[in-house]
Amino acid sequence: MKKCEIHWRERPYHKQSSEAFCVNQIPIGAIMPCASIVSAPSYAFPFRSSSAATSSISPTAISLTKRTSNPRIEATSFRKCVVRATVSIEKETPEAERPETFLRGVDEAHSSSSVRARFEKMIREAQDTVCTALEAADGGAHFKEDVWSRPGGGGGISRVLQDGAVWEKAGVNVSVVYGVMPPDAYRAAKGAPTDQKPGPVPFFAAGISSVLHPKNPFAPTLHFNYRYFETDAPKDAPGAPRQWWFGGGTDLTPAYIFEEDVKHFHSVQKRACDKFEPTFYPRFKKWCDDYFYIKHRGERRGLGGIFFDDLNDYDQEMLLSFATECANSVIPAYIPIIEKRKDLPFTEQQKAWQQLRRGRYVEFNLVYDRGTTFGLKTGGRIESILVSLPLTARWEYDHKPEEGSEEWKLLDACINPKEWI
Amino acid sequence: MKKCEIHWRERPYHKQSSEAFCVNQIPIGAIMPCASIVSAPSYAFPFRSSSAATSSISPTAISLTKRTSNPRIEATSFRKCVVRATVSIEKETPEAERPETFLRGVDEAHSSSSVRARFEKMIREAQDTVCTALEAADGGAHFKEDVWSRPGGGGGISRVLQDGAVWEKAGVNVSVVYGVMPPDAYRAAKGAPTDQKPGPVPFFAAGISSVLHPKNPFAPTLHFNYRYFETDAPKDAPGAPRQWWFGGGTDLTPAYIFEEDVKHFHSVQKRACDKFEPTFYPRFKKWCDDYFYIKHRGERRGLGGIFFDDLNDYDQEMLLSFATECANSVIPAYIPIIEKRKDLPFTEQQKAWQQLRRGRYVEFNLVYDRGTTFGLKTGGRIESILVSLPLTARWEYDHKPEEGSEEWKLLDACINPKEWI
Repeated sequence: MKKCEIHWRERPYHKQSSEAFCVNQIPIGAIMPCASIVSAPSYAFPFRSSSAATSSISPTAISLTKRTSNPRIEATSFRKCVVRATVSIEKETPEAERPETFLRGVDEAHSSSSVRARFEKMIREAQDTVCTALEAADGGAHFKEDVWSRPGGGGGISRVLQDGAVWEKAGVNVSVVYGVMPPDAYRAAKGAPTDQKPGPVPFFAAGISSVLHPKNPFAPTLHFNYRYFETDAPKDAPGAPRQWWFGGGTDLTPAYIFEEDVKHFHSVQKRACDKFEPTFYPRFKKWCDDYFYIKHRGERRGLGGIFFDDLNDYDQEMLLSFATECANSVIPAYIPIIEKRKDLPFTEQQKAWQQLRRGRYVEFNLVYDRGTTFGLKTGGRIESILVSLPLTARWEYDHKPEEGSEEWKLLDACINPKEWI
Repeated sequence: MKKCEIHWRERPYHKQSSEAFCVNQIPIGAIMPCASIVSAPSYAFPFRSSSAATSSISPTAISLTKRTSNPRIEATSFRKCVVRATVSIEKETPEAERPETFLRGVDEAHSSSSVRARFEKMIREAQDTVCTALEAADGGAHFKEDVWSRPGGGGGISRVLQDGAVWEKAGVNVSVVYGVMPPDAYRAAKGAPTDQKPGPVPFFAAGISSVLHPKNPFAPTLHFNYRYFETDAPKDAPGAPRQWWFGGGTDLTPAYIFEEDVKHFHSVQKRACDKFEPTFYPRFKKWCDDYFYIKHRGERRGLGGIFFDDLNDYDQEMLLSFATECANSVIPAYIPIIEKRKDLPFTEQQKAWQQLRRGRYVEFNLVYDRGTTFGLKTGGRIESILVSLPLTARWEYDHKPEEGSEEWKLLDACINPKEWI
């Protein structure tokens, strides 16, 4: 495996207030002991600028060092994350044009062989491909694009399609952010002995994140998110290893089960996994079922797919290829289902059931999703974070589908995850 | 002031599992260092039985000892609450008929002069009065009633009206629960020295809780909740004081401002307060504005009203009368507004704006409301907890009302709370 070089540019970090780190830093006091905070939908991650008063710090939704293989975060462990909820803000700058790269400086941008450069290229191409395919399938609506940059480092491209012919709301965002963590934060994260004197710790994080909510109750919602992280050892603590990892997943949330659709979707995920490692699909399928669990309902929000996090125990090149394969599998996994279902006639009752399931989506994202909840708590750009919420949702008191009905079958599959292939 | 006697029936508490307390206990490990967890909407509180598999432990949403005057709970302090998120369940028993009282045993039930007995009587009368008035104003729909009891002590009456002519969803619940806290929990709560050996700590909690969501976008949503708590010192720690306190409030959440409506609503609240103490209205009005704050939006969810918690620094009889006055003020504060607005014609855009504001209601309740979030985390009966959510809600990407528009005026008043009278 070819090792890429990392060119960190050492710069002093500054505090915006005694309780706040930001600019090109992660507010580490707030997140360090917590595992992989940017899992899943994570519109927290592709934050961007706002002309409104709302402040933004979504790249905080990143955990850099402490990691866990347990995807389900419990309240008891989440509380550990919020050591300091007050983080402050670096204003993003709206940009008129997309830059060729968000990477910093000429050297790095031109080092096209680096994993970070190739990951950025991959997610930007994926964003283009997905948006083009969605617009084609929608047949009318277009994505609205917002480009932004951060003085501290990096930027992103947010695209939202709203009230289309097929999708009521579809967001496809990429972001590339980097900077340095304060040494205290690094120490807290590492639990290092006090005689160590780490300097600022550089980090890099890039990702693509998307949620697609169709109108037709027979057409499923899709979420996908792929991301790559790097962090480095403190400058004056030589020997501490540089770290990198990949995370992500793609999952399907229908209101009605068409078994052929779910099989197709899972088959495409499995095929992508199997190209790399036979254990991936069963492992990441289960991880997905575990992660998207609405604990207070005892239900998953949908019918799963794949989900993984903190993945670094394979060859880095292999994992980059794997993430690329996964991102490239989104359209072949999803669009054939949409084409089949987008124009099916439906009743008011079927629409209401879809809306109830959308309510569950809201519950998951607001109550459990780590990226979302962390983004909300730390003052992320709210419109970017909550673009994952559906246009409309519904809550009926004590609604129980009749046993054996189509609605009941969906609920049953959310309560008792199935092997689809 | 006449002191009422408390007849605690000492009984051994039992653990349902090593990680779980319940039955007639509060899962104190989970909540103790946290302030007044049952503030506000708190459908967690009037939990009840379910024939579904869902378990229930909503009376856990009660904090008994540690209290604060700061109504806004931050993530950093909330995490302290969730010391142990796993609590288990005492199944409620559905009852065919409402009992005359939920108080335990003949002696206590007949001690009609006790504050707990009079508080129960008050909230049950308030429930009847409010439901009758709502049904009359709705002109067609009726409340569905569920009565439940708990073997460990107490019970409740849940009433929900759904899809009426005026209200799309209206819930009015009462509950009366009691039992004992495990000594460990009491110790944790009190931060007492280890040489103390407290026994089980008895508690009592009763409340009425209601959220009313009308259909017409010009008719406002109303929430009110009044509650009374008692706790006692451990049996073998004589001298530790018995404690009691009152909490509650009534607040208005319109989508459009009719200044005369908001003035009327606040005037009724002020009148109720002024009968008892001139500082109440300004203090509780501000407390309300502070509590119903959607931090990630920088907005209140509505136009406020009154909110108070942990109130025990006045004569107990006076506070019982005050809570009664507040509960009795709900109908005169709210129904005249409904009568004026329920049949106003409206546009699709106005309905959509109401739905966006309903989305904010969902955000507040799922992300910030202490009763709701705690109920979700501890396995409360979900349908009772989430009956506070609207039937339908909406999220548009980056929606910004035009400056000076009626929608903008509402938003402005949610961002910058006003003095209405």
